Amino acid sequence: MIEAGIIGGAGYTAGELIRILLRHPEVNLNFIYSTSQAEKPVSSIHQDLTGETGLIFSGEINPEADVVFLCLGHGNSVKFLNDNSFSDKTKIVDLSTDYRIAADSHSFVYGLPEFNREKISDAKFIANPGCFATAISLAILPLAANDLLKEDVHINAVTGATGAGTSLSETTHFTWRDNNYSSYKAFEHQHLEEINHSVKKLQSDFRSTLNFIPNRGNFSRGIHCTAYTHFEGSQEEAKEIYQKAYEDAAFTFVTEGEVHLKQVVNTNKCLIRLQKFGNKLLITSVLDNLLKGASGQAVQNMNLMFGFPENQGLQLKASYF
Amino acid sequence: MIEAGIIGGAGYTAGELIRILLRHPEVNLNFIYSTSQAEKPVSSIHQDLTGETGLIFSGEINPEADVVFLCLGHGNSVKFLNDNSFSDKTKIVDLSTDYRIAADSHSFVYGLPEFNREKISDAKFIANPGCFATAISLAILPLAANDLLKEDVHINAVTGATGAGTSLSETTHFTWRDNNYSSYKAFEHQHLEEINHSVKKLQSDFRSTLNFIPNRGNFSRGIHCTAYTHFEGSQEEAKEIYQKAYEDAAFTFVTEGEVHLKQVVNTNKCLIRLQKFGNKLLITSVLDNLLKGASGQAVQNMNLMFGFPENQGLQLKASYF
Amino acid sequence: MIEAGIIGGAGYTAGELIRILLRHPEVNLNFIYSTSQAEKPVSSIHQDLTGETGLIFSGEINPEADVVFLCLGHGNSVKFLNDNSFSDKTKIVDLSTDYRIAADSHSFVYGLPEFNREKISDAKFIANPGCFATAISLAILPLAANDLLKEDVHINAVTGATGAGTSLSETTHFTWRDNNYSSYKAFEHQHLEEINHSVKKLQSDFRSTLNFIPNRGNFSRGIHCTAYTHFEGSQEEAKEIYQKAYEDAAFTFVTEGEVHLKQVVNTNKCLIRLQKFGNKLLITSVLDNLLKGASGQAVQNMNLMFGFPENQGLQLKASYF
Amino acid sequence: MIEAGIIGGAGYTAGELIRILLRHPEVNLNFIYSTSQAEKPVSSIHQDLTGETGLIFSGEINPEADVVFLCLGHGNSVKFLNDNSFSDKTKIVDLSTDYRIAADSHSFVYGLPEFNREKISDAKFIANPGCFATAISLAILPLAANDLLKEDVHINAVTGATGAGTSLSETTHFTWRDNNYSSYKAFEHQHLEEINHSVKKLQSDFRSTLNFIPNRGNFSRGIHCTAYTHFEGSQEEAKEIYQKAYEDAAFTFVTEGEVHLKQVVNTNKCLIRLQKFGNKLLITSVLDNLLKGASGQAVQNMNLMFGFPENQGLQLKASYF
Repeated sequence: MIEAGIIGGAGYTAGELIRILLRHPEVNLNFIYSTSQAEKPVSSIHQDLTGETGLIFSGEINPEADVVFLCLGHGNSVKFLNDNSFSDKTKIVDLSTDYRIAADSHSFVYGLPEFNREKISDAKFIANPGCFATAISLAILPLAANDLLKEDVHINAVTGATGAGTSLSETTHFTWRDNNYSSYKAFEHQHLEEINHSVKKLQSDFRSTLNFIPNRGNFSRGIHCTAYTHFEGSQEEAKEIYQKAYEDAAFTFVTEGEVHLKQVVNTNKCLIRLQKFGNKLLITSVLDNLLKGASGQAVQNMNLMFGFPENQGLQLKASYF
Repeated sequence: MIEAGIIGGAGYTAGELIRILLRHPEVNLNFIYSTSQAEKPVSSIHQDLTGETGLIFSGEINPEADVVFLCLGHGNSVKFLNDNSFSDKTKIVDLSTDYRIAADSHSFVYGLPEFNREKISDAKFIANPGCFATAISLAILPLAANDLLKEDVHINAVTGATGAGTSLSETTHFTWRDNNYSSYKAFEHQHLEEINHSVKKLQSDFRSTLNFIPNRGNFSRGIHCTAYTHFEGSQEEAKEIYQKAYEDAAFTFVTEGEVHLKQVVNTNKCLIRLQKFGNKLLITSVLDNLLKGASGQAVQNMNLMFGFPENQGLQLKASYF
Repeated sequence: MIEAGIIGGAGYTAGELIRILLRHPEVNLNFIYSTSQAEKPVSSIHQDLTGETGLIFSGEINPEADVVFLCLGHGNSVKFLNDNSFSDKTKIVDLSTDYRIAADSHSFVYGLPEFNREKISDAKFIANPGCFATAISLAILPLAANDLLKEDVHINAVTGATGAGTSLSETTHFTWRDNNYSSYKAFEHQHLEEINHSVKKLQSDFRSTLNFIPNRGNFSRGIHCTAYTHFEGSQEEAKEIYQKAYEDAAFTFVTEGEVHLKQVVNTNKCLIRLQKFGNKLLITSVLDNLLKGASGQAVQNMNLMFGFPENQGLQLKASYF
Repeated sequence: MIEAGIIGGAGYTAGELIRILLRHPEVNLNFIYSTSQAEKPVSSIHQDLTGETGLIFSGEINPEADVVFLCLGHGNSVKFLNDNSFSDKTKIVDLSTDYRIAADSHSFVYGLPEFNREKISDAKFIANPGCFATAISLAILPLAANDLLKEDVHINAVTGATGAGTSLSETTHFTWRDNNYSSYKAFEHQHLEEINHSVKKLQSDFRSTLNFIPNRGNFSRGIHCTAYTHFEGSQEEAKEIYQKAYEDAAFTFVTEGEVHLKQVVNTNKCLIRLQKFGNKLLITSVLDNLLKGASGQAVQNMNLMFGFPENQGLQLKASYF
């Protein structure tokens, strides 16, 4: 049994972490630090937890926790770790972008278990990947791992409204988003940097471009991603490559037939479909942006770091219908 | 051709008024007054109007306009009319609650054409009914007009997110409202006052209670209302009463078969269904909260005041699917 | 470890049972009987289970199973049990309406744990309550249990599209239901019989009417129910009554503040809010129609029958956002 | 005043035609032919028309009509015109795919007014473009018209559930589609043929590939399309090209700022945004699949054929919120 803490407890990713960790057999949720909600019951914000927990948001951290999850806005994790210190044994999982790009200035390990399981198992600090980055990386890294990304990749992905965070904005207002659709940050989404970084680690000669158009969907959760690129082999060869890449994966599966969001929403899974058209390979991936794209993957990384079964606490029931 | 002005142009009701008046053959949209948006193109806020109008939000009013619509927050119409004056010929339609209850202090006429057509035609100042008030009044006033409201009325109605106004709030955030449902202000909704007022004008001996539970639906537009009460007569007698009440109505129809929102959304119609169960009469009414429940009815009142055909500019295509 | 079977495996309630039982630590899912899907992988229909189970729909039943769940259309459970027999030890949970009304012709126990826990624990055959029946019963039975239902009860409830079953129909077509709302079967819903039956068992002098209007909401899962009736006591007295009624309940909680669907969807919970207005008590209840309103409650009943902890396998993570 | 007939009256495109033509000042809706609905009131199927029309579906056609719209399934228009004949003066607008590709065997003119206005004005028979074809053609044909399509084009578009027709299917069931997303027919959508045909008519040396991934969105109406390709010029030069291409267009506008579905749904408009990134031009287009993508464009073509103002009867109010 380990003691876990959460920093920044009122947002979506913290909420999902709380839901998972409260039910995790190896974890005691030691504290949830929130300056804005301090002293309030956790179930007053995450109201689905009514009757399940008497936890109160805390205005103080416990520096002796075994593991701490940082659920802070981008840029704030660096600041928080400068201002606060934890015991030597404390492992940290950061859900922001702050440490995702490897650098001499920090020792965070990129927490994508499908391609980094061993390093994660030995790590003390984990940079949890972005939601789009996870969906896209799982779609294309098996090709990079085999030096097969030879030309530009064309990526289009759509995310739910939880992808935009809890703050209110025009595009998260119900009357705007209901029955609507739009794209944003075309070719310039901030996750492109970490994806390119992952690609080049696996295929150092990669010189092509990842063309990525993100979109806002009128649903709450989920990412649907299509990516296609030049591929010489057959569809069967592609499947072999991907099945080999994911044969040990706890949550990532190559599947036949159409993939869609309801197959994965409210689970930690990523489903991947492969189709060959002419000389192009189309890879479609789906996942839940808050789980495999954030908090679920964070717990998966925690499981690896502490030697728990990789799927412990993460065998979640999809709502599906 | 009359000159029309709108006060408070960035919200939902102003937006709908603009859309209707721009296409109204007898109206020139003279000015749209908005302090927050002054000098901006109207199509920068109401972006569906791209290519249709070069109008600019104005920081000044034209006191010589033939008709002025007040689209201000509740309480602000009184304040605005205290601070601004219009020419003697200027007719005013107020969409707020400020003047809906008849009082010696003002000369506004309640703008429910089905029960007030003559007074509206002669009026200079109109208090446009509330959205729930319109749906409920059209459901029960035919009974009041025949002194048939003998016992309590049990009313349950649900409104779309536009009913809550453009401001951002927890319950209008997409991730809250999507696939959700809740009730609010049970038995205490502010529209009860104007509905009771209308009932008592028609049936002065009414002493029973209107029990009204409003609900938030996860859709953008529309009100669906069920109301039931004791009724001695047969279903056929009820239909005769209602059909007589609405035989001259331009937009309110008694219909057979189920009623639902898609029959009326984006139109100025109200559809009404009557069913008898035991000694209870169930009346179901549906309308678009922004049109028959606000801006459409405001234009209907304008048409009556200026002697235009009652449905002019209001023959709107439902989206239906 | 017990062996469980499911009869009729392709629908919503069977799907939810499969999801729950696959993760239940005391249950082995022995067979899923489906004539229409026999020989197909379960994950080809319930596609969220990809990677989790190799189970195949079976064309045969195992009469030696410890527990069998009947997920058949109303009327078909009687027929099925006439045509098939199980071992003496086999316990049966029927999710249809067929055995919900106590009768000399059968020995099924009504499976509402909050009011029937002891009988359920000793039962061999369980009639699982209807979804609306559960939401409404949990809202009003504490009053009946105290002989406090003195006048008519006015009930309005809305259910998601899964309430209509998997078959395609006009009102479950996306283009009809999206952003729509309607009522149906007013005062005549088939669940009224079992609710009245439950009320009269607790308050034999009940002579008033349960007035119930069901509605179709444009969401997939969940029931939101408001019920009000005459109540002499204070709001605090009402809370005491309800809190006492549910002090041992595993999933039913009296809560402060607004209740809404996202608090309970994808969980086995029922949340209840109490408000006093004048001499009326308003009770609002919310639950997931497929879980507490069907399959979750069925497993809860199974847990009680086999002496497992009541919430085993049912500590489900809400999606909430 | 011309006499119009509709063949196949119960579907989405027929419904929209009826709504538009009933309000068109130059058209009398002479007959609506439907074998499945013959003798039923039109308002019993298109229920938003309650109170507006007493029209009855007809089991017979009027061969003397001035214009006839064919709203039949793909393949059935050819069959219908083989089996039925109309007067010499009768103009025909076919909404199916049957005549969209020019061929010696027929004399239908492709009804995309932005690029074919003169031929349409002189035409007797019009093949109305497909919905995706319209959105994509309006996005890329200005480049083709200037011989600027030099490399592959990468197109991703999403359509609402009305795009799949009125028949019930798994992917149009509410519980499947609600809060879901998926792609289909990648690189092989049937509209690619007519788009390629249009491109090559304008740029005969076009040898590149249109890579098109269509998607199913969880909304009822609308198409959102992104297309990008190599473009040497600046963003300003692109805007000049497009503004020139659409300077006479009645409903297609180049716009600044984000485009989204609510700007165009329930109107006959297409909005287009242009953005330059590196050496790529990104074109985003939005339209209503049932209006500019079907019935609205059909009426636009009718207006041109009969010399009516191009936008007559088509100045539709968006619902926007």
